[in-house]
Amino acid sequence: MPRCPGRHSGDEVIEHLVVIGVGLIGGSFALDLRKKGLVGRVTGVGRGRANLEKAKELGIVDAIADSAAAAVKDADLVLLAIPVGAMAAVFRDVAASLPARCILTDAGSTKQDVIAAARAGLGGKIGQFVPGHPIAGAETNGAEAARTGLYYHKPYVLTPLPENPPAAVETVQALWKACGAQVSEMEAARHDQVFAAVSHLPHLVAFALMEELAGRPDAETYFRHAGNGFRDFTRIAGSHPEMWRDISLANKDALVAELDTFIAKLAGMRGLLARGDGQALEGLFTRAREARLNWIKGKRH
Amino acid sequence: MPRCPGRHSGDEVIEHLVVIGVGLIGGSFALDLRKKGLVGRVTGVGRGRANLEKAKELGIVDAIADSAAAAVKDADLVLLAIPVGAMAAVFRDVAASLPARCILTDAGSTKQDVIAAARAGLGGKIGQFVPGHPIAGAETNGAEAARTGLYYHKPYVLTPLPENPPAAVETVQALWKACGAQVSEMEAARHDQVFAAVSHLPHLVAFALMEELAGRPDAETYFRHAGNGFRDFTRIAGSHPEMWRDISLANKDALVAELDTFIAKLAGMRGLLARGDGQALEGLFTRAREARLNWIKGKRH
Repeated sequence: MPRCPGRHSGDEVIEHLVVIGVGLIGGSFALDLRKKGLVGRVTGVGRGRANLEKAKELGIVDAIADSAAAAVKDADLVLLAIPVGAMAAVFRDVAASLPARCILTDAGSTKQDVIAAARAGLGGKIGQFVPGHPIAGAETNGAEAARTGLYYHKPYVLTPLPENPPAAVETVQALWKACGAQVSEMEAARHDQVFAAVSHLPHLVAFALMEELAGRPDAETYFRHAGNGFRDFTRIAGSHPEMWRDISLANKDALVAELDTFIAKLAGMRGLLARGDGQALEGLFTRAREARLNWIKGKRH
Repeated sequence: MPRCPGRHSGDEVIEHLVVIGVGLIGGSFALDLRKKGLVGRVTGVGRGRANLEKAKELGIVDAIADSAAAAVKDADLVLLAIPVGAMAAVFRDVAASLPARCILTDAGSTKQDVIAAARAGLGGKIGQFVPGHPIAGAETNGAEAARTGLYYHKPYVLTPLPENPPAAVETVQALWKACGAQVSEMEAARHDQVFAAVSHLPHLVAFALMEELAGRPDAETYFRHAGNGFRDFTRIAGSHPEMWRDISLANKDALVAELDTFIAKLAGMRGLLARGDGQALEGLFTRAREARLNWIKGKRH
């Protein structure tokens, strides 16, 4: 990790980390960097005062700032870990006070919209923004959900901009690697397409099933008989509604395309079932099962 | 639990239990009853000799029978724990040799089709068949997957027939309660409709997503970036293809109806997304999340 320019207290250390949005994602990043001794002090910024006080009490942040603009003034690294729909306002707010040495990065689940918002908000300082996405969400949130080790062996996708100085990209990459994440690089558009399929679509599907059953007059009967399969399948339906509204809207085009593909897939399956084509159904289930067993096996290596 | 007529070695004990299909479900039932001292000896029957040998080695069964017809001759209770599509043949096979004192029960995930097969196969002995469904599936199978405690605090649905003597229903109920299951009673048709929604549909959806992504030329990129949400959502796509082919076909009408409802739900969600209706999406996600949190809370009590 390169030395932070203008700082003198030691190599490889982020003197002043500002976390905007001290929840599961932002809080866990701060905790890991603290544990590794890679950060001097941490300031938290956010909409909920009670959550920030809790973050301070839990030793996630040292101080609380009233505004993002004030907090970044003497920051070396800023992590934006807020719903993607809230990022545009923050980029606008911090642009003027962001020091030249400071690197800005994010943890947004969509990248093209966040990059567009950063370009609009940061203007000439866009090179200081290194976009990224740690894949370690959970259905829990708030500072109390934060924990060390959250990113260990989890994917992290970097989608750097042509304007980023290589040193800034390396710093961001090194910090996530220090948290144990498996870092890879992708184009922002490709990132959004891949995550529409492996993350955003499953979330919408889980929300849809849960909401459908909850709306039935005899919902209680359904839920009483639901087992472990249902429990795991719908775990992500416990996710943060605002966050997922933002992700859905931010990645609308790719997600609509994936929904269309998936609806067609289910309609095809319905056709096989209505025709009683057991052989085709078993073939489909077998291909699915093999793909899943291989994927799980691959994750263990 | 009533005394087994014709048996003398003790009250409340099933002298001779025959398990047809010694996998996760059948094997775990035998293990629990053995542990509680509620069973004298256990005979296993099944298609795979190697699996039966393994079941014997693991102490799940004491003996292996070559045919169901031979095994039931001096049985007190028989559990059918095989794919529902394979049950009709077994009912036919055992009808002649089934002693009058013996209770036959099953663990099938669908009930109307199993009951119809039992009526066809057992004829005048239909009163000896007490249909039921333990909700404790997993994506593992075979005798090696069997374990004690599988049914602890899990739902078990009894769908008794008008022909069942109350004592037979009580015996079956008492055995599952002894395994720790939460026993409830339902009409077979209602059972099939409820499980189409809370179990069969989610399985088909998980199989569909996994197979869709696996079929893409760049499948590896998708799977490499899939996180824990995807892992849990698709866990049931690792389930047994033949078993799920049978369940799908056996519960075709209810499952086609649920698929239609769900496809319409997803199409509605796609409309909200395409129109950029963030408020409606957030409302839907919020209702889903609240329903899930309440459900999980209820399960803990």
